[in-house]
Amino acid sequence: MKLLPVIFLLALTAATSALDNGLMRTPPMGWMSWERFRCNVNCENDPKNCISENLFRDMADRLAEDGWKEMGYDHVMIDDCWSSMLRDKDGRLQPDPQRFPGGIAKLARYLHDRGLKLGIYGDLGTHTCGGYPGTTLDKIETDAQTFASWGVDFLKLDGCYSNEEDQQKGYPLMSKALNATGRPIGYSCSWPAYRGGLPPSVNYTLLGEICNLWRNYDDIQDSWNSVQDITDWFFDNQEILQPEAGPGRWNDPDMLIIGNFGLSVDQSRSQMALWAIMAAPLIMSNNLRTLSSEARAILQNRAAIAINQDPMGVQGRRLLQERSLIEVYWRPLSQSASALVFLSRRQDMPYQYHTSLAKLNYTAGSYEVCSSFLVPFLVLSNHIVAHDDSISSSA
Amino acid sequence: MKLLPVIFLLALTAATSALDNGLMRTPPMGWMSWERFRCNVNCENDPKNCISENLFRDMADRLAEDGWKEMGYDHVMIDDCWSSMLRDKDGRLQPDPQRFPGGIAKLARYLHDRGLKLGIYGDLGTHTCGGYPGTTLDKIETDAQTFASWGVDFLKLDGCYSNEEDQQKGYPLMSKALNATGRPIGYSCSWPAYRGGLPPSVNYTLLGEICNLWRNYDDIQDSWNSVQDITDWFFDNQEILQPEAGPGRWNDPDMLIIGNFGLSVDQSRSQMALWAIMAAPLIMSNNLRTLSSEARAILQNRAAIAINQDPMGVQGRRLLQERSLIEVYWRPLSQSASALVFLSRRQDMPYQYHTSLAKLNYTAGSYEVCSSFLVPFLVLSNHIVAHDDSISSSA
Repeated sequence: MKLLPVIFLLALTAATSALDNGLMRTPPMGWMSWERFRCNVNCENDPKNCISENLFRDMADRLAEDGWKEMGYDHVMIDDCWSSMLRDKDGRLQPDPQRFPGGIAKLARYLHDRGLKLGIYGDLGTHTCGGYPGTTLDKIETDAQTFASWGVDFLKLDGCYSNEEDQQKGYPLMSKALNATGRPIGYSCSWPAYRGGLPPSVNYTLLGEICNLWRNYDDIQDSWNSVQDITDWFFDNQEILQPEAGPGRWNDPDMLIIGNFGLSVDQSRSQMALWAIMAAPLIMSNNLRTLSSEARAILQNRAAIAINQDPMGVQGRRLLQERSLIEVYWRPLSQSASALVFLSRRQDMPYQYHTSLAKLNYTAGSYEVCSSFLVPFLVLSNHIVAHDDSISSSA
Repeated sequence: MKLLPVIFLLALTAATSALDNGLMRTPPMGWMSWERFRCNVNCENDPKNCISENLFRDMADRLAEDGWKEMGYDHVMIDDCWSSMLRDKDGRLQPDPQRFPGGIAKLARYLHDRGLKLGIYGDLGTHTCGGYPGTTLDKIETDAQTFASWGVDFLKLDGCYSNEEDQQKGYPLMSKALNATGRPIGYSCSWPAYRGGLPPSVNYTLLGEICNLWRNYDDIQDSWNSVQDITDWFFDNQEILQPEAGPGRWNDPDMLIIGNFGLSVDQSRSQMALWAIMAAPLIMSNNLRTLSSEARAILQNRAAIAINQDPMGVQGRRLLQERSLIEVYWRPLSQSASALVFLSRRQDMPYQYHTSLAKLNYTAGSYEVCSSFLVPFLVLSNHIVAHDDSISSSA
């Protein structure tokens, strides 16, 4: 496909250096326990769904055996409620002995043997959000070393029970402590989510020099309302957020909830398309054991994943917002390509929407529409066809 | 299943006489054009989806050939935007000649030949909601006779562009005019929806002596928010609404939107279960040509339909509402049976809910749980099991 390069030059001007651990040059992909399994520690009554090594081994098996790993979903991320309520005699975090009898190091080996990576969760504060031991400033080095010694590949550091000053000190300190372990560990900071969403003011140009990704906004819930709320917030703040993102440093609108209970098929397609445009981490939180074929097909959509993982790593933008009619989202891709998403939020019926490349700010020239691996038009509802320079969408 | 009869005696005390056309002793079932196809009259660009005789013939074919008729879905209901903008030289309504070239009588024969019934739409006012000719008071007899002469079996009489006085006169007048035609014509009054939702004050004991069904509340839209809003309104007002309903006279929470774009599978199951408990008309508005197998299975669920069509015709009630946890709905059925629905609106994860029959106001005694045709527990999300007198729900 040929697009005039002027389209994405603007967006590229903001690209600068990122955290130098060399990780996550494209948005991380994988699976995380929180949205779907929360802090369910009731293994006696609910052994299949409680936070335990069995759950993470099961999900690792699914990622490895059901085609996920090949698509790029290679992280299994433990969220809150994995640890014992007490640190060990040397002050180190330790997993709950009943629910993780094999320990984290063994679980990490299980994943590594299958070509997968293990993520773990901590909280920069006195306690985690779920009430488990937190990582206060004096514990940062210890915990970084513990995680590295277990063979952990990723850390999500939450921000419950800490104040602004601690966060201002602690998030950069953990970044250095992780780097000091010598083990490459991807680093997700929940920092902005505790400071109103936008990247907090730091002594650095970009938050991306401290963290590989960061949660900006509220936790996602299993509903289309929640997906819309997050989407609106991200694109309403795109002028500030978009320059922060790039290879190795990503805004994180939270997990993919596709495959759970709250989204219709069309709403699921919409989340996937929007997360692709946003260059968002593609971290599912669902039950991979019982996923429907529709949900699987959406999450394994090659075009959406290719757009999400585009090596140029430019976060997309909202081009057009006619709320009662259509919204158009756009992301410039490498090799002079573009991705466009047409989103209709109407609750009445499908309708025809006609536009033109000129109206979408594409300059005059010759365009080719790809419809296979790298489709520029993500199909959200029914069909979108493009011919000559006019685009017709029935969404 | 054995349940002590005290459970439903209370509800039965309100049962009195209904409109004496003998129709709709159980809630009507079928298909209606509005929610899914609206006032799309653009047959040139959208021939498959515009309001035309082709659309209604297509849906009749689907009802007759895809197992719907056998399940009870036997009405094909034309909604707004079917008519010409002008009455004929004798003052009679006439269909749009381009979109209904064969006329309504021919369409009615097409349906009758397939064992189906035809519904049509009118509006007690100067114009229909879509701007087509309305039925002012002086036209009521003419229009009733026109509909009867065409072989129409059902009339939805909307209430746009009329005032309270006209409605107070007009809705009963149309009831008499339809009866006077000698043709049995089911009669749906949108009257309450224009007067705040509750049955308007009339010189009759029950609205059911005038109409077979009536729309109480706002039009349904293609979203779970809309389904919840309607459900809440109906059950918040159950003390007033429930006694109005019975064989031949039904509150109408509007169409089933299952199979469209806005509901997840679980939300679709919930609408079906709640409409069954409410003794609501089961009038689908969707595209029967392209329905998913999941949507079809939910709409053709034998247990839900049997509960909805229970001959005793008592509208169900909300028993319990713990918003952040569970809501329990209940409908007494004939043969001493009961239907219970457990609805969870949580947006986090499935959870276990334990209750007991005693807590649900079932008196001491012996109970049997049916799980086949007449299941007392409609499965909303995952599974609901009952053993001894305790009920465990993972919803």
